[in-house]
Amino acid sequence: MSFNTFGRVFRFTTWGESHGPAIGCVVDGVPSRLSLKAEDIQFWMDRRRPGQSKFTTQRQEPDAVEILSGVFDGQTTGTPISLMIRNVDQKSKDYGDIAERFRPGHADYTYHMKYGIRDYRGGGRSSARETASRVAAGAVARKVLEAAGVKIRGALVQMGELSIDRRRWDWDEVERNPFWCPDAGMVQTFEDYLLAIRKEGSSVGAIIEVVAEGVPVGWGAPIYGKLDADLASAMMSINAVKAVEIGDGFSAATLRGEQNADEMRKSGGGVAFQSNHAGGILGGISSGQPVVVRFAVKPTSSILTPVQSVTASGEEVDLITKGRHDPCVGIRAVPVGEAMMACVLADHFMLHRAQQG
Amino acid sequence: MSFNTFGRVFRFTTWGESHGPAIGCVVDGVPSRLSLKAEDIQFWMDRRRPGQSKFTTQRQEPDAVEILSGVFDGQTTGTPISLMIRNVDQKSKDYGDIAERFRPGHADYTYHMKYGIRDYRGGGRSSARETASRVAAGAVARKVLEAAGVKIRGALVQMGELSIDRRRWDWDEVERNPFWCPDAGMVQTFEDYLLAIRKEGSSVGAIIEVVAEGVPVGWGAPIYGKLDADLASAMMSINAVKAVEIGDGFSAATLRGEQNADEMRKSGGGVAFQSNHAGGILGGISSGQPVVVRFAVKPTSSILTPVQSVTASGEEVDLITKGRHDPCVGIRAVPVGEAMMACVLADHFMLHRAQQG
Amino acid sequence: MSFNTFGRVFRFTTWGESHGPAIGCVVDGVPSRLSLKAEDIQFWMDRRRPGQSKFTTQRQEPDAVEILSGVFDGQTTGTPISLMIRNVDQKSKDYGDIAERFRPGHADYTYHMKYGIRDYRGGGRSSARETASRVAAGAVARKVLEAAGVKIRGALVQMGELSIDRRRWDWDEVERNPFWCPDAGMVQTFEDYLLAIRKEGSSVGAIIEVVAEGVPVGWGAPIYGKLDADLASAMMSINAVKAVEIGDGFSAATLRGEQNADEMRKSGGGVAFQSNHAGGILGGISSGQPVVVRFAVKPTSSILTPVQSVTASGEEVDLITKGRHDPCVGIRAVPVGEAMMACVLADHFMLHRAQQG
Amino acid sequence: MSFNTFGRVFRFTTWGESHGPAIGCVVDGVPSRLSLKAEDIQFWMDRRRPGQSKFTTQRQEPDAVEILSGVFDGQTTGTPISLMIRNVDQKSKDYGDIAERFRPGHADYTYHMKYGIRDYRGGGRSSARETASRVAAGAVARKVLEAAGVKIRGALVQMGELSIDRRRWDWDEVERNPFWCPDAGMVQTFEDYLLAIRKEGSSVGAIIEVVAEGVPVGWGAPIYGKLDADLASAMMSINAVKAVEIGDGFSAATLRGEQNADEMRKSGGGVAFQSNHAGGILGGISSGQPVVVRFAVKPTSSILTPVQSVTASGEEVDLITKGRHDPCVGIRAVPVGEAMMACVLADHFMLHRAQQG
Repeated sequence: MSFNTFGRVFRFTTWGESHGPAIGCVVDGVPSRLSLKAEDIQFWMDRRRPGQSKFTTQRQEPDAVEILSGVFDGQTTGTPISLMIRNVDQKSKDYGDIAERFRPGHADYTYHMKYGIRDYRGGGRSSARETASRVAAGAVARKVLEAAGVKIRGALVQMGELSIDRRRWDWDEVERNPFWCPDAGMVQTFEDYLLAIRKEGSSVGAIIEVVAEGVPVGWGAPIYGKLDADLASAMMSINAVKAVEIGDGFSAATLRGEQNADEMRKSGGGVAFQSNHAGGILGGISSGQPVVVRFAVKPTSSILTPVQSVTASGEEVDLITKGRHDPCVGIRAVPVGEAMMACVLADHFMLHRAQQG
Repeated sequence: MSFNTFGRVFRFTTWGESHGPAIGCVVDGVPSRLSLKAEDIQFWMDRRRPGQSKFTTQRQEPDAVEILSGVFDGQTTGTPISLMIRNVDQKSKDYGDIAERFRPGHADYTYHMKYGIRDYRGGGRSSARETASRVAAGAVARKVLEAAGVKIRGALVQMGELSIDRRRWDWDEVERNPFWCPDAGMVQTFEDYLLAIRKEGSSVGAIIEVVAEGVPVGWGAPIYGKLDADLASAMMSINAVKAVEIGDGFSAATLRGEQNADEMRKSGGGVAFQSNHAGGILGGISSGQPVVVRFAVKPTSSILTPVQSVTASGEEVDLITKGRHDPCVGIRAVPVGEAMMACVLADHFMLHRAQQG
Repeated sequence: MSFNTFGRVFRFTTWGESHGPAIGCVVDGVPSRLSLKAEDIQFWMDRRRPGQSKFTTQRQEPDAVEILSGVFDGQTTGTPISLMIRNVDQKSKDYGDIAERFRPGHADYTYHMKYGIRDYRGGGRSSARETASRVAAGAVARKVLEAAGVKIRGALVQMGELSIDRRRWDWDEVERNPFWCPDAGMVQTFEDYLLAIRKEGSSVGAIIEVVAEGVPVGWGAPIYGKLDADLASAMMSINAVKAVEIGDGFSAATLRGEQNADEMRKSGGGVAFQSNHAGGILGGISSGQPVVVRFAVKPTSSILTPVQSVTASGEEVDLITKGRHDPCVGIRAVPVGEAMMACVLADHFMLHRAQQG
Repeated sequence: MSFNTFGRVFRFTTWGESHGPAIGCVVDGVPSRLSLKAEDIQFWMDRRRPGQSKFTTQRQEPDAVEILSGVFDGQTTGTPISLMIRNVDQKSKDYGDIAERFRPGHADYTYHMKYGIRDYRGGGRSSARETASRVAAGAVARKVLEAAGVKIRGALVQMGELSIDRRRWDWDEVERNPFWCPDAGMVQTFEDYLLAIRKEGSSVGAIIEVVAEGVPVGWGAPIYGKLDADLASAMMSINAVKAVEIGDGFSAATLRGEQNADEMRKSGGGVAFQSNHAGGILGGISSGQPVVVRFAVKPTSSILTPVQSVTASGEEVDLITKGRHDPCVGIRAVPVGEAMMACVLADHFMLHRAQQG
């Protein structure tokens, strides 16, 4: 069923709960002789790590990755790579009051009804903490993609009602602000907006865009292994994500055929597309243009405003979720979206090789 | 790799090209002793069938399904169900000119680059004709779901810039117009709009909504087998789909935590949600509310307006795609979206049983 | 669950019952631009075809393969290849009496208990007729392997208590007798033996050996994707097979470490093994030596000697199975074993490419 | 590709090398609310643990299992169970001389040729140490099977040329001697035999039998998900296993149809088989009789007798493998075979539930 496994030939399995001793993943199918050190992975972990700015949860987790297998003398050996991240700052007391109460918007109620038991501490398995394992797996995927020259970057393009101005897009700016915002002109606006929301004990949603450049034409596959179908599954599996689009996405529904056409001209020995409405994917296969994915993250469900709920024993309650929460969990979804893009592409890179004679 | 297979325990594999002798699917994992006749499947096939109104392709395909295996004495036997649909109205001449020319928006270029050969007749494998096999598989899935009392219905909610008024939503109306439109007040508008577009030799996109009622709480699974992740993959794998959302979807990005909260109250022995922003899924598991999915279909790429393109031999051309095309391919995506919803739910229904003691 | 699907990247799904309208398979993951015609497949089908000698069932099936998809202009396109074989000589009357009676050694009882319904005609899905689909898939696999220069051949090495003399092994002889026997000195003995058994209305088991030459070092994978584990599953899944061994197999249990060692010497730029106790596989990965698999086929369960049984309604009966049966079903298992070897190797050939940089 | 993953719905993924910091596995798909403590797993680990008698390797490993996830308040939660076993007694010095030399019978040569790099310390990933993870997974599988009342036991039935007398079979005796031998009359013989072999620095093979009692009729599935095909793959994937048989296995090849028939009589409301040549499986589905599997383990390849080999740099060498080796590695395969049987059955138990309405 692969409920906790993602991918076909580049595959990873994640495990662990928010407040257990550790979380981690096993990455299988990795080609041998790739240079890989814990620091290579740590670099990406540090980008997702909580507690780095006043806009993310104050949980202090070093998120130090240990490589337990699959690497020898600094190189991958082709055997499964087991990565472990110890949970350090668990503060279980914070969460004791949710043992019985179902937090609306969280998986408390559904886990309870499905499994009859749940590790309620910090959301247990359904915590966004699981995404640290994805980032670790994504770091390995990036190593696989290095040979192909693929570059993956993500950015936050909308927070609540506020959108960036795409004409001011600057990838360098993304690294300079705590929102992964590519529009320098919106950084202060986002900051003021989010501080106000946090002050109110509220939260807000966001839209993230991830772009992969350098993907050659031909990766992906018809029909149920389409590159875009795999990306949709990958992004939708991230906590709090409610929507995914490729290229123009929902806007494509409003277009005429001639507006949506990505016209082609000759260019050197190849082809130059005149636009990229398709987001770099045609018929499930990469076209050689940048692969563009956007996804929506709902507002953090844990807020200080009381919401109506019920308890496991059937009592009605008004619930306030204290604890250390991100006012906009979408921010930390940026490195996670990048990681999932990397995993999908590494998988299809390898699958493509399998079929080439 | 399961490139042409969908599902985990309820699984189907499709095969066939637009202009080959036949298309079909093999549905595996179906429980035994379900009543199943060709007519049961044909009922759903007829809803997707081309040539039924002036708004869809004039290709005349009876889409008659033959059951070749897996059914005995009118009941499923638990063995694979092979379904075949012969192609009748192929008119290969219509498509001869695209052997060399890459139609923008189609998979011509990417298939050519990936495989070095393609069945160009009518788009071959990448033709929307493949979706007939999905509808056939979906009809079997509906039989599996009957025991659970699930009801699945789809509707077209937007065409180009024109949206329905959701306050006038009427499921009965969906069956009365050729657009699967649930808003009687928009039918004439859609008709006029689409006639104009067809007359111009153009096309337009659409948004489809599929709703499953009666899904009990508890179907689905963390983390990479989430019900919404599987739905996202299912819908994105449909031809021309560029975006998928669950519940409020992209709108959730604009909401505050308190606006997005689906509050809960007691109701009988259970729980009553006060809203359904989540679209019936929490943490990847069904909440007992209706499961709501929307997806965007891009405008048909085959249009009479000339678009710039290149040929396989590297010549630049201005391309007009003649033939019999849907001006809004989104219309016929409605039964396909329903079918994919049915397949995902049948799969998770069975997976849920596997885990229950 | 892949109950009717075999393989990872080279995958096939079979369908169909002994007395339904047709049987067939869908072969997915096949690289494009392989030359493939129906005749290429038919060549291998004809080797397994019933009714060719007095030692196999007298059912007359032309086993004519139709290619329904995935091939264009005589070449594979990378899309799923659907192959169909119509059932012609079904004679359902012959089997009417087994609707209620469980034939010992057959799957009648277990199918009945598991599914509550079964297509009892000729064994339905559990009939050896399913193996025709394997041979068809195997023919496609051989095309994939052509590029690698792999040669696969099978032989019958034991019938009942009678074994061949391996010192007289002659692959050419295999093609000259109806038993696929590589020992010319045993052919008359096998013939006399089997005629006597058939006359008595009895049956006998057999041991089949399949050898793949030209497999390069490096195919296969640890730990649960071992080449030998996949071969064991492949062969054990063939009807009536009860045992599988690699290289020395069970005999290895009787050896000392020094007897079992395949010593290595230099040879040209590579390595020359001095023996092949391991059957060409070390740690689940091919060693470059011939891959050697043997499997045991039990005696045909359908015999004229009365055996004690019960009926679906719980009556005790003495059962004689009339009809057209192979006195030694192992004979026709030779081409089936070859086909499964081809499918396993094609899969691992492609998987190996996926991991190579 | 699932190279390091086994199973369909009850799935486990193993990781780790012989001389790395730890080994372990992630068990996915486990139903919730099963009582599970580290001690439950430890009980089975201790049976496989090295260093317990003079007949197994003297490596001293406590094999202490840590549960890192998936268990809360002593119960499974339905989320992945991560199990870790730290390597303690690694003694890497012992193995330094095999960095360059290919030990015949080991995976040294094939790993080197496939991956271009290998963790040579103690065999790395190809070490029998990996089987500790299987035993851990098997302990969880046994918990799943408890509800079904299945009992799984294994025994050593042959060592080298010496076989037990099956008429003296006593399951209680299995627990009383270091060989898992069910025949008290053979224990002293085995001891003398093995001491002599160890003294010579040699090794010997063995045959193991694993029996599952209490498996109800109906588990398993046609055609490529047959219970026996899965068992064949499971057992063949164990280190040093070269052969697998079900029921009479290879002996069935020598039988006549009437000898091989498991006749059926009425018994209570059900059916009583008069024999069990089939080993409890008919058409890939359990018959309700005990499921019987045997497998052959080759002699330990590490011996003190010099064998001819080559080095990675192409030099010819005479190799003696010092270190701490089992003279009969088959002995410790008994608990491993039991574990694999448990995992296969737990998987099919759950799959069977998925298909039942």
